[in-house]
Amino acid sequence: MRKICLIGMGPGGLKYLTAQAIAALRKVDVFFLLEKQGRGKEALGDTRHRVLDLYRGPGAYRVVTAESPPRARAQDDYLDVVADWHARKAEIFAALFDEHLAEGQTGGVLVWGDPALYDSSIAILRRVQAQYPGRFEVEVTPAVSSLNLLAARHAIPLHEIGGDLLVTTARRLLAGAAKDHESVAVMLDSNAAFAQIAPEDFDIYWGAYLGTEHEVLASGPLGEIGPALAETVRREKQRLGWILDIYLLRRRHVTEPAS
Amino acid sequence: MRKICLIGMGPGGLKYLTAQAIAALRKVDVFFLLEKQGRGKEALGDTRHRVLDLYRGPGAYRVVTAESPPRARAQDDYLDVVADWHARKAEIFAALFDEHLAEGQTGGVLVWGDPALYDSSIAILRRVQAQYPGRFEVEVTPAVSSLNLLAARHAIPLHEIGGDLLVTTARRLLAGAAKDHESVAVMLDSNAAFAQIAPEDFDIYWGAYLGTEHEVLASGPLGEIGPALAETVRREKQRLGWILDIYLLRRRHVTEPAS
Repeated sequence: MRKICLIGMGPGGLKYLTAQAIAALRKVDVFFLLEKQGRGKEALGDTRHRVLDLYRGPGAYRVVTAESPPRARAQDDYLDVVADWHARKAEIFAALFDEHLAEGQTGGVLVWGDPALYDSSIAILRRVQAQYPGRFEVEVTPAVSSLNLLAARHAIPLHEIGGDLLVTTARRLLAGAAKDHESVAVMLDSNAAFAQIAPEDFDIYWGAYLGTEHEVLASGPLGEIGPALAETVRREKQRLGWILDIYLLRRRHVTEPAS
Repeated sequence: MRKICLIGMGPGGLKYLTAQAIAALRKVDVFFLLEKQGRGKEALGDTRHRVLDLYRGPGAYRVVTAESPPRARAQDDYLDVVADWHARKAEIFAALFDEHLAEGQTGGVLVWGDPALYDSSIAILRRVQAQYPGRFEVEVTPAVSSLNLLAARHAIPLHEIGGDLLVTTARRLLAGAAKDHESVAVMLDSNAAFAQIAPEDFDIYWGAYLGTEHEVLASGPLGEIGPALAETVRREKQRLGWILDIYLLRRRHVTEPAS
């Protein structure tokens, strides 16, 4: 058996790693990175190297890199496109593990944020496992997600007292997912979907590049700040060439001091 | 101004603290603990002391303890009861801060799990801030939540590809919250609410005492393992006198390998 450690680094920066994640990455023989194109993606790759330099010592670790396959643009065939993309990544990982990991060795895959939220690595490694039964053990190290960090930065709970939290995507928000929900966290946006829905009585708690030197925060009634915030999203994307943002929509209640 | 650091410790054990949380608790002058009754609550209190012993040095920190006010049993008046409980806790904290923190000093409040998910500390400290404007600054340090750890232990994503995640309570699950959702995480249960809903085609991924020496995991089709799992909940509660469990309900799809 070869062991693959999928290690969550948390959202940006070096300080969000847990003691468990640091211990896990110290046991890794070879790290595997699929490098994506684009300026933002390079920044993510750089962070991985800074994490390894800090916690393993500069150069005191082995990294095998391959190019991440491009993802076809999806419309109605979103699920098929994503499934195909996962399958190709699984093939690449399987080949890399075979070539670079000896029996009994441990491979490492570093994930930005928490591996269980809107990251494909768990699904991809499960595919590798399923394709080569009995060859790979997968161990996941959880992390602080950008959702937890967003709430911490705004010093708010993610839900009302005793209430629900819906975690969803911009795609689903535009399809009406916020309806009947009091607290809605939106990920995978980057195109200011919040400004395209009826603002109703939502407050928005927004953050971009959370945990990095570029961090920007904003909050207020969606109807009031939505248009200016959409402009901020456009401007920030232009400035850095990419954006990673996330937000919580919260229905306002006059009687709820906690919100 | 006095600064209050609300520090998430993550779910159980010492290894889930982030580097940021460890740095934050090293800057604290006085820690404030509201101690609750009950065997499980004692275990949580013990963990706080073990965290402080490890990261500050045994005895090398100051802790002020007060008794947590009891919460009235709630039925239809749930929100009122909780709001009243928060108000009483806010009064206790404000009095403790006043008595034990000098101007410019930093107080610490340690939270199990992540402060933004089903923990009342943020709401309570915001009340303290609102009651004494300009006297207290509140800084929240995010943490790994038990939700992230549950997913890591089962090596599953919390949602389907491109899908939603509903995070809810047992109370709401019983009121039908899972309807029309594919992925539903349930917190604040401890009475096996999963066994009281129609199992439909859900798989359940369950865990109790996550991250502690008592950790128990189970997964499978809800219709098949639900009754035995409810029995496990009863047995574990009897054995330790308390239970902290959490689970994900996931609708099964023949075509979704990632689930």
